[in-house]
Order: sequence, then structure tokens, then C-alpha cells
Amino acid sequence: MGNLNVSDIKVTELLKIEVSGGNVFRCLKDSDIGYKDFGEAYFSFVEKNFIKAWKIHKKMTLNLIVPSGSVKFVFFDLNKNFREIISGRDDYKRITVPPKIWFGFQGLGEENLILNIANVRHDNNEVERKDFNLIDYKWNKN
Amino acid sequence: MGNLNVSDIKVTELLKIEVSGGNVFRCLKDSDIGYKDFGEAYFSFVEKNFIKAWKIHKKMTLNLIVPSGSVKFVFFDLNKNFREIISGRDDYKRITVPPKIWFGFQGLGEENLILNIANVRHDNNEVERKDFNLIDYKWNKN
Repeated sequence: MGNLNVSDIKVTELLKIEVSGGNVFRCLKDSDIGYKDFGEAYFSFVEKNFIKAWKIHKKMTLNLIVPSGSVKFVFFDLNKNFREIISGRDDYKRITVPPKIWFGFQGLGEENLILNIANVRHDNNEVERKDFNLIDYKWNKN
Repeated sequence: MGNLNVSDIKVTELLKIEVSGGNVFRCLKDSDIGYKDFGEAYFSFVEKNFIKAWKIHKKMTLNLIVPSGSVKFVFFDLNKNFREIISGRDDYKRITVPPKIWFGFQGLGEENLILNIANVRHDNNEVERKDFNLIDYKWNKN
């Protein structure tokens, strides 16, 4: 299989179910497109305007969901294409990211929370990091 | 297998990893005690002081994690034992609840978010609900 590119990232609108006293927000089912396997789930917080970049996973497929605040994700593939996706409580979706795509993200809201449901467990051996400046993307630094 | 009771609910402290610009909070790995299978993950919000009660799952094992705010969970088993567990960002843990235990919960913080990672998909046929008043528990109504 060749490398996937940013057009292979899948964006899925997710249902928000109105419930008295607090709504229910769907995330992921094992029957959904985008679900591969369950390895690990973890939360990442990102402060307003803070940029976390860049990272690439060699094996992990990510399912990224933002239930609080809003986050701008930027993806960069090995063919040098960029793709920007904003996700958050008011624009609620799941972003399924195949392996071998660079990504970074920036907090847009006051309190920004990302859930990643990944098909493999976190393992530093399958992650590479690159300094913020080493991919030429114009982040909006407020 | 006989019915499980509230002492079979497993509470696991979870690691919070300090990261510049926003911390990482562990949730669940497929190798963790408490993990059975992946069926569905979903978020429930609960407003401050609001009580959502009562519900029982016939088949679902729940893994409950509260990354924002604070929530009081009350569990009630078929042997009529109660158990109260508070979980939240400042008291961060995973609560693994086997099937056939009644539960309800109340929001304690300003913004309270619960993630449930369940071993089966949501299915109304495996859920029963009971009115708030039909289990004799003294909720704190502020």
C-alpha cells in the first residue's frame, strides 16, 4: 500500500442527542466507517492559541473528537499537501486520520479538549516529531 | 454467573501527563483491567446540580471517565447496596461498572462531561429506566 494523503482523512458529522439536563454526543461505534480496532483512548487539552506541532504516526489510525471548545487541525502529507479542519462543540465531527500523515493543532476556544480513539496503544517508537518551524505552514498566532 | 454488586465496580486512578500547552489524560487501553471489548464510545454532559437517574444496563460494561468538571455517581445493586463515587478532573479516575447495577449521577461542577467507553453499542433493548423517586436515595439538591 502506498502512502495515504490528506484527501484520505475522513470527516464524519456526529449526532448530538438532546437530553434534559445535558446532551449526549456520539463518538464512535465499532460498526462505523473509520473504526479499525481499539488500542487506546486518551484526552489531550490544548490551551487557547497554543500550537502543538508536528507529529506523525507510523501505525496509528486516529479518531479525533472535540467535545469542548474548538480546535484547528492541520494535516500535511508526504506529497506535501496541506489540509485544515476545524472541529469543536459547535461544529461537532469525527476526524479519522490514517497513519503517515503529519499533523499539528491549535486551540481556538477558551477550554479545548480532544479525545483520540486509536487502533493501537501509544508507543513512542511509532511516533516521530518535528519542530514547529520545520514544516512551512502559516499558523495564526494571536 | 450470579449478579454482581457494587463492590465489583472497579475504580482505577488514571495518569495525567504534563505537556506544555495542555496536558494529556489517559483513559483506557486494550490491555487494562476493565477493558472487555469496544462497542461504542459517547459523551454525556450533565448540568450543575442536575440529576440523571436511574438506569440499568443488562449487557453493557461501562468505563466512565470525567475529564471536565466533577460528577457524583451513585450505584445501587440488586442486593440493595449503595455506593457513591465522585470523579472529575481534579480526582481523575476510571470507573468500570459491570452490567446489572442501577446508577444515577449528578453534576457538581460548572461544566461536567462524562465519557463512556462501552463494550457493546447503545441499544435501548438492554437498558431499563426507573423514575428518580423509585430508588430511595437522598440526593443533595442545591
